[in-house]
Amino acid sequence: MIPTHVNRRTRHSPVLATAVLLALMPRAFAQTDPLPSWNETPVKQAIVDFVREATTEGQPGFVPTDERVAVFDMDGTLVPERPVPLALVPVLDDIQQAVEAKPMLRDRPAVAALLKGDVATLHAAGEQGIVDLVAVTTDGRTTEEIVQNVRPLIEGKTAERFGVPYSQAVYQPMREVLALLEANGFTNWICSGSPLLITREVSQGMFGIPPERVMGSHVGTRLDERDGRTVLLFDGTIGRLNDGEFKPVTISLAMPTRPVFVAGNEGGRGDIAMMRWSKDRDGASFQLLVNHDDAAREFEYAEPDEYSLNAAQRYGFHVASIKHDWKTVVGTVEGEQK
Amino acid sequence: MIPTHVNRRTRHSPVLATAVLLALMPRAFAQTDPLPSWNETPVKQAIVDFVREATTEGQPGFVPTDERVAVFDMDGTLVPERPVPLALVPVLDDIQQAVEAKPMLRDRPAVAALLKGDVATLHAAGEQGIVDLVAVTTDGRTTEEIVQNVRPLIEGKTAERFGVPYSQAVYQPMREVLALLEANGFTNWICSGSPLLITREVSQGMFGIPPERVMGSHVGTRLDERDGRTVLLFDGTIGRLNDGEFKPVTISLAMPTRPVFVAGNEGGRGDIAMMRWSKDRDGASFQLLVNHDDAAREFEYAEPDEYSLNAAQRYGFHVASIKHDWKTVVGTVEGEQK
Repeated sequence: MIPTHVNRRTRHSPVLATAVLLALMPRAFAQTDPLPSWNETPVKQAIVDFVREATTEGQPGFVPTDERVAVFDMDGTLVPERPVPLALVPVLDDIQQAVEAKPMLRDRPAVAALLKGDVATLHAAGEQGIVDLVAVTTDGRTTEEIVQNVRPLIEGKTAERFGVPYSQAVYQPMREVLALLEANGFTNWICSGSPLLITREVSQGMFGIPPERVMGSHVGTRLDERDGRTVLLFDGTIGRLNDGEFKPVTISLAMPTRPVFVAGNEGGRGDIAMMRWSKDRDGASFQLLVNHDDAAREFEYAEPDEYSLNAAQRYGFHVASIKHDWKTVVGTVEGEQK
Repeated sequence: MIPTHVNRRTRHSPVLATAVLLALMPRAFAQTDPLPSWNETPVKQAIVDFVREATTEGQPGFVPTDERVAVFDMDGTLVPERPVPLALVPVLDDIQQAVEAKPMLRDRPAVAALLKGDVATLHAAGEQGIVDLVAVTTDGRTTEEIVQNVRPLIEGKTAERFGVPYSQAVYQPMREVLALLEANGFTNWICSGSPLLITREVSQGMFGIPPERVMGSHVGTRLDERDGRTVLLFDGTIGRLNDGEFKPVTISLAMPTRPVFVAGNEGGRGDIAMMRWSKDRDGASFQLLVNHDDAAREFEYAEPDEYSLNAAQRYGFHVASIKHDWKTVVGTVEGEQK
């Protein structure tokens, strides 16, 4: 790995040579393995190689600093999306409380389906179902009132599968990818199908991503006044369902360039469009698709037609198998296996 | 201003005392006037006092670093909006070229009105008029093709009133406010009624604001493919007209807190809602309304009912009179009077 001429120089001036070496090596590679929770597989090597190339001027894969943008899906990519997506954790509480207060809310099909965990009926309820659920959840509260309990609810509830609060149920290997990219000048963003207002409440604490760099779904709101003070209230419309082909649209409104690095997951068909949007940029790029193939340590599921896995093959995306590529799934900061 | 006990210490150790003083004083106030293009009026003093309080722990107006967000309208607030808003400079060229290639486009009322400068007919054309104009402007081009000439067009065309390219026709006093805020830990954003995709092309060069911190109007786009490559195309709909009561909605999607500092202008009624959204935050805030009352050095115009000036009075916003408060209007970096 170390070029011969540098080895020769070490004989004469080891201190200088070490300094030169350290200066030449990207920071995150200088001393320790940047991805300790990954097994030594080709995917891990590909990530490390990509970042090294992206940060080495003169390499074909070099990416100028101001283009180093990485976009991550959240549910199923950074955190488990089973049994429920992260953003539903606080919402379920709201809905249960609302239904206790007003039992007639059970008559709305989407509400009843959600409380029963009847996913098929929930999907069949479509946009009207979402509007009903949002109406029940918000229950006349302002946007600011709605979000104020999100963080304590996610911190306070245990993700049973992993025995830690939802706020700590983050994929350790993906945490390391986030950190590796950030250490090498990348700006990390989230582009999630989950509600923007809920997701950005936990993005800094869980992923080190500031709220301004979160893209997500949202409902329509309108300006109103309460006691002479301006507030925002749900207006009964869907603003944007940020999934599939809408994700590149959302990304294009948030930033002027196509992202260089995009991570998504098999399971909901939702991330292929934004991965293609990245792949089709001018210059180097990297797409990572997380595959949920580990029933023993996480969950095992896929789209019936394996649409996303097939797309990864067709377009040359990298697939991270939870079973084979990840040493740890949900870990502590020390990387303890769960 | 200097506490007595510090004065006493200077007798014993002037170097130490100076170091302590400098450390205690916010950076931008340490040596030079941060707002040299402003006359010595109460508005200038109010801005300076607000920033000093916001950055001094223990003061009632102190604002924690992570809440220091400033939002600026663009047209009429950071740059002149007469004779045309900045974003129309490149668009007018596109429309003229399109009409030369396809003269029947003149039959669309909004296109004919724009080419004649007939503002009344243009307004009357409403949303359909905007859709027509966007269709003519984009003419089947992708979002990326549309923006690639924005910068050269704005840099290449002279703003006749000021004898400099449009890219340099920035209000020098507002440049200084942006710099003062940034030097004191504020994050500056733009929230404009102008098209997002055009505005963010020039935001870094003209205002030092990165493209990711620009909010604006936008049309709907859809993902499509050209030669197997993903592209985004205009879908014939209006996405968001970012004006008036929509501005707080847009801001609430871009950031989780209400901005502390908001600047807008009299002339289009468009900024009062976001200024109220800021004023109604918990804690200190500052709203600045630019008043175009200087026919000799810029332009003189107001809403027929002076809605914005009246709102400033009612809600306690500060009004910057171009005539009385600004020493320079559009200046060079050296602050030369034009």
